[in-house]
Amino acid sequence: MGGDKAPQIVVEGAHLARETHPNAKFIIYGDEAQIKPLVAKYPGLERCLEVRHTPDKVTSHDKPAHALRHGRNSSMRLAIDAVARGEADCVVSAGNTGALMAMALFSLKRMPGIHRPAIATYMPTKIPGHGTVLMDLGANAECTSQNLLEFAVLGGLFSREIFKIAEPRIALLNIGSEAMKGDELVQAASEVFATATLPGKYVGFAEGDEIMTGNFDVVVTDGFTGNVTLKTIEGTAKLIKHMMKEAFKSSIWARVGAVLCLPGLAICYHALKKFSKRMDPRYYNGASLLGLRGLCIKSHGGTDGIGFANAIGVAGGLAANKFTAKVEAELERLGFSAEPAPPTEGA
Amino acid sequence: MGGDKAPQIVVEGAHLARETHPNAKFIIYGDEAQIKPLVAKYPGLERCLEVRHTPDKVTSHDKPAHALRHGRNSSMRLAIDAVARGEADCVVSAGNTGALMAMALFSLKRMPGIHRPAIATYMPTKIPGHGTVLMDLGANAECTSQNLLEFAVLGGLFSREIFKIAEPRIALLNIGSEAMKGDELVQAASEVFATATLPGKYVGFAEGDEIMTGNFDVVVTDGFTGNVTLKTIEGTAKLIKHMMKEAFKSSIWARVGAVLCLPGLAICYHALKKFSKRMDPRYYNGASLLGLRGLCIKSHGGTDGIGFANAIGVAGGLAANKFTAKVEAELERLGFSAEPAPPTEGA
Repeated sequence: MGGDKAPQIVVEGAHLARETHPNAKFIIYGDEAQIKPLVAKYPGLERCLEVRHTPDKVTSHDKPAHALRHGRNSSMRLAIDAVARGEADCVVSAGNTGALMAMALFSLKRMPGIHRPAIATYMPTKIPGHGTVLMDLGANAECTSQNLLEFAVLGGLFSREIFKIAEPRIALLNIGSEAMKGDELVQAASEVFATATLPGKYVGFAEGDEIMTGNFDVVVTDGFTGNVTLKTIEGTAKLIKHMMKEAFKSSIWARVGAVLCLPGLAICYHALKKFSKRMDPRYYNGASLLGLRGLCIKSHGGTDGIGFANAIGVAGGLAANKFTAKVEAELERLGFSAEPAPPTEGA
Repeated sequence: MGGDKAPQIVVEGAHLARETHPNAKFIIYGDEAQIKPLVAKYPGLERCLEVRHTPDKVTSHDKPAHALRHGRNSSMRLAIDAVARGEADCVVSAGNTGALMAMALFSLKRMPGIHRPAIATYMPTKIPGHGTVLMDLGANAECTSQNLLEFAVLGGLFSREIFKIAEPRIALLNIGSEAMKGDELVQAASEVFATATLPGKYVGFAEGDEIMTGNFDVVVTDGFTGNVTLKTIEGTAKLIKHMMKEAFKSSIWARVGAVLCLPGLAICYHALKKFSKRMDPRYYNGASLLGLRGLCIKSHGGTDGIGFANAIGVAGGLAANKFTAKVEAELERLGFSAEPAPPTEGA
């Protein structure tokens, strides 16, 4: 449930995800009357999918605290609770991000040593098959250097898991590469990073135009800057696509030229399809809430069935690899779990 | 002088800028022995260009305070001083941004009522001929809500001047459009903006993916977020260009297809040229240092002659329209100049 186009995209996503995860079982929480007819459209889907009815839902306008207090029977909360009691391996939601984080924090709890869970995803880079983990994407608008350090640890472990990079290169997002650059937060964080034991190597500052060069494996920033960065990447890609389409429609000659390109483009079909897949945000859909004692994946609210299936794929991959248990073991090994996380700070 | 490829790009930029500004006169400060042979390459350029020799320069590694103290005879400082004493209408530099701001602040002084000058540029949008003014781009890594208010005023006046928009729609960059979203700074700034007299209309929050939709005329943020945003846009555009080129080279068939597209592309030539010009960062080169009592334009350090010529064009356009005098008059009318700017805050 949740998201701009639920429950359609959720059901279609489950259907499509069967291709890559043929043994996956789904529990969908939400309005049975809406969901059941959608499930019936996909042959065999009802055999691996259970619908659990609840009329309650969290809307995109609900404040996290309100959702937490009044949404005990919402589809979002019930899905998270299924992970908390071990009935489900992971929860995937396209709903309200703030509410999802608040409920997941309450129900799944923080990992020992983590003060603030954060949202991570990976961005495409110039190197095929490589992605840069970017976090936090908006869970924590205001951060301390300790928060950023924990993001670096979680991001490093995520990079190891997803891209099998043994020693991820971890950078702090900044407005220059020189040591003196930046605000107080990055200056303080850089000092902390330089002496900390990380699952990877701290390599200094990365600028905004270096996130996708492939020179870094993890780029750490506060949730305000991270969210603006993520959305700026989306906005730029959209603008370029729009301008390119406009160019081919801008005059009769441009249209004639575009038609004459078609045979050539048909021959390039596979290359262009690969390109457009590398650029398609749906194939990067599925941001992970890291630092929780259970898997929780946030899908873009405006995605479609393909995008939602990809978010399910991220969840399935992490679940199959016992990511949560691995991270907890690593945090203990790195000495993070020794620090008790004060409960008041986690809200 | 200054920038990665000076003085070549400076001389070539002056040569190219003559096309749009045939009456412009140039003073180039720097190493005469390097500059004179370059000038000789362009017929007639020496008639509108004077070279003033100085061996000193500010390097990209100099800290602003160091440059200010030890760079009194640097090409950057001498060029700024020429504006300060009214000999030149504007200064254009591709050098060290921090040093340029520090020297310009010292030599040109702040406008009355402006605590912190800021760097502004405009980004392309979906609407041809329209640009969104984005600021601050990095002069002030840490800001107060009063700083952001002053940026909004300067940005609004800049939008009026450059795009002739009578009532610019001014937004605050944030991580959501709902009133509760964001960090303390945007929350405080939003309250201040809602009741302030602005040269335009405060329309609330803009997210990262809305900067280039054309729905806003001015997007205001602190220098840390603004710099990351600007560079993220650059990095995303570069990645897309790279991936597209790679796609057409990825296999024999892709290469054959690309060749077969050539006649069609030739027919689209004008449309594609227009597209690539709209996407080419050189044509957006030239960020303005706003809030100073003199015109100072910062060129991208890595640009070429075409990019530098564009930065000269921005400077020439603002100078011809007496932008500085207009802004000072508007600040007084809006009641900003009444507040004395404490000198300690301006450094």
